[in-house]
Amino acid sequence: MSGGGAREEGGCDHDGGDDGPCAVDAEERLARGALTRIFEPGDELIGRWLRTCTPQEVLRALRRPGAPLPGAGDQRWAGLRARAERARPEADMAAVEAVGGRFLCPGDREWPGQLDALGPTRPVGLWVRGAPSLRFWALRSVAVVGARACTEYGAHMAAVLGAGLAERGWTVISGAAYGIDGAAHRGALASGGATVGVLACGVDVAYPPGHAELIRRIGEQGLLVAELPPQEHPLRSRFVLRNRVIAALTRGTVVVEAALRSGSLSTARHARRLGRLVMGVPGPVTSGLSAGVHELLREEGSVVTDAAEVIELVGSMGELAPARRGPAVPHDVLPGAAARVLEALPGRGTAESAQLARAAGTTPEEAHVRLQELCALGFVERLGSRWQLVRPGDKRTGHPIE
Amino acid sequence: MSGGGAREEGGCDHDGGDDGPCAVDAEERLARGALTRIFEPGDELIGRWLRTCTPQEVLRALRRPGAPLPGAGDQRWAGLRARAERARPEADMAAVEAVGGRFLCPGDREWPGQLDALGPTRPVGLWVRGAPSLRFWALRSVAVVGARACTEYGAHMAAVLGAGLAERGWTVISGAAYGIDGAAHRGALASGGATVGVLACGVDVAYPPGHAELIRRIGEQGLLVAELPPQEHPLRSRFVLRNRVIAALTRGTVVVEAALRSGSLSTARHARRLGRLVMGVPGPVTSGLSAGVHELLREEGSVVTDAAEVIELVGSMGELAPARRGPAVPHDVLPGAAARVLEALPGRGTAESAQLARAAGTTPEEAHVRLQELCALGFVERLGSRWQLVRPGDKRTGHPIE
Repeated sequence: MSGGGAREEGGCDHDGGDDGPCAVDAEERLARGALTRIFEPGDELIGRWLRTCTPQEVLRALRRPGAPLPGAGDQRWAGLRARAERARPEADMAAVEAVGGRFLCPGDREWPGQLDALGPTRPVGLWVRGAPSLRFWALRSVAVVGARACTEYGAHMAAVLGAGLAERGWTVISGAAYGIDGAAHRGALASGGATVGVLACGVDVAYPPGHAELIRRIGEQGLLVAELPPQEHPLRSRFVLRNRVIAALTRGTVVVEAALRSGSLSTARHARRLGRLVMGVPGPVTSGLSAGVHELLREEGSVVTDAAEVIELVGSMGELAPARRGPAVPHDVLPGAAARVLEALPGRGTAESAQLARAAGTTPEEAHVRLQELCALGFVERLGSRWQLVRPGDKRTGHPIE
Repeated sequence: MSGGGAREEGGCDHDGGDDGPCAVDAEERLARGALTRIFEPGDELIGRWLRTCTPQEVLRALRRPGAPLPGAGDQRWAGLRARAERARPEADMAAVEAVGGRFLCPGDREWPGQLDALGPTRPVGLWVRGAPSLRFWALRSVAVVGARACTEYGAHMAAVLGAGLAERGWTVISGAAYGIDGAAHRGALASGGATVGVLACGVDVAYPPGHAELIRRIGEQGLLVAELPPQEHPLRSRFVLRNRVIAALTRGTVVVEAALRSGSLSTARHARRLGRLVMGVPGPVTSGLSAGVHELLREEGSVVTDAAEVIELVGSMGELAPARRGPAVPHDVLPGAAARVLEALPGRGTAESAQLARAAGTTPEEAHVRLQELCALGFVERLGSRWQLVRPGDKRTGHPIE
């Protein structure tokens, strides 16, 4: 178990300045990492098994020849045992750390609690790449998804929505695919906002290949998230299962363009099952790529035509909505770096992030990431390129919930 | 009161072959005709007055100098008295009969009962031009309305919807305006179906002038309806008040294109207030002429993208839906001409309308009109250019309700 300390640091101490205990021990983290190599995403078998056994016990059973295994055919177990033999979680964690990543487990401070809604298909763990806190960014997030082979109209709408959501302090989560997904990420990146790419492969695999540069930028400016360990490649089934993570992470899913019975509607179906909001951007009835969206809208979804309308809908739902209940976490559990940036903000008026970086003794990039976390948490708000405290007495209050 | 008999014939005997008593006597009909010249459409003052007085009493009071008048300022009464002096209902009825029309009153067999939902703003009477029964056609009708300055996309969608509704035996009701209205009427006419133009002027006035030919065709193949007597011209206020009649006559209103806060949304607002269905055809978010429709859809309306979806929604509502409850009226109250056409239909299989006209001893045009009435009533259905009885045991039964 050499390197367990490094794993622990990668897993739950990224926010710095906090010396509280790490909820997930190194051995469990390694076992969970191995399980992401052994089981396909969303496999209910492992989800149910982990209700009665620890990840370490599961891994030991898989690696001990002849150990009794629950609930699946012999042939299936043979395949899983072979994968268990080959799993090298220490090497995977070293690989992800080498690209600035970490492996998150349920129980980690950065773990997004809303994934629990997935029940037995909750991810065993998440491979994450990028500086921001996934938990904080996902608190105020919206999925913007749709067809790969979209029209110019769809790409335009996705980019405008992505930019509009990001400008208003919302995180844009999508699948980094061609078409609508890519346009939504690009819109968020272009406005200097927060965006998360949830991949159906390892966070060190650039898929689709034509999006290598986009995926690199998301990893630098935002976050890349995957259930699959490094170097895993996407499969058809993995795309659909990935979509359940996008749906579960976000408060709502906006479908921009989708053909009838298109795979890009699966995120919306997951969102509906999970009780998240389902929204659709209407388009010309004469366009086959709007037909799936219109079907969605006739069944259940809400018509949205811009970011403000999306936020009006998702902002009023969810227990953690800062607009209604003050900041989502108390001031004193803020990670050190975020707390220092928050301290640096003037009591009145606005400040540039570079100015705040100097005052907080950090880099402008780090300050920008922390400001977006603070925004997601309801402590600060963005006004163009400047930031200000959310004042007491505003709809959102800057006072911590003690 | 010379010519009272002619009025009576024009008003309630158009269906022929039925010698039952006429519910509205000639004197009341003349008085109501005069009141349509005196009061603007939708004036609640006259609606409330008629709750306690007969139309004849109201007219006498208006024409007797010094008679006490209820609930309006002196100046207003002076104007109404002046109009009462000038009203010539016998001449108006002669004029409308000269163009193949009639004047309908509440209580007439052809009066569409759903107008009662308008309460004190129910029309005092309706000037109607065209052979079909307004009551029968309105039973299964949908309003298709929208912007005058529509796009090519909107005009295309309105024409396709108009044709699709008419092909399925539904009456398309609109306002004969430029743009969406005209396209919807044209679509219905082109498919040889039923369409009603509700005008904001007299039924002998072609407004807008560029639609003179369209309005002539609606009057020949369908129906023209107006609250205003012959030769009255449209005013801005009359368009909005006309829209309440379109909304009340139909089971639902489809808005095809409308700018934000556009007047063409007023029919939808009336429909909503009256408990009718409100539907909208989505379009590109980037089109200002779809913005009003999307606003409507976000507030309350249902997304529809073709005629089948409209019918799915409106077909399941309304007390008289033939699809659920058999024909809307008993066989033995059918007008003579309709009863003869019904008799002519073969027990099995289909027939052309020309063939049915010969068998029923009438003209092909007359047979076509009666077949559409019978379709609206649930006795027959259309299959392309042919007609057949709705069979017992079908969803819609051909058996009369006794």
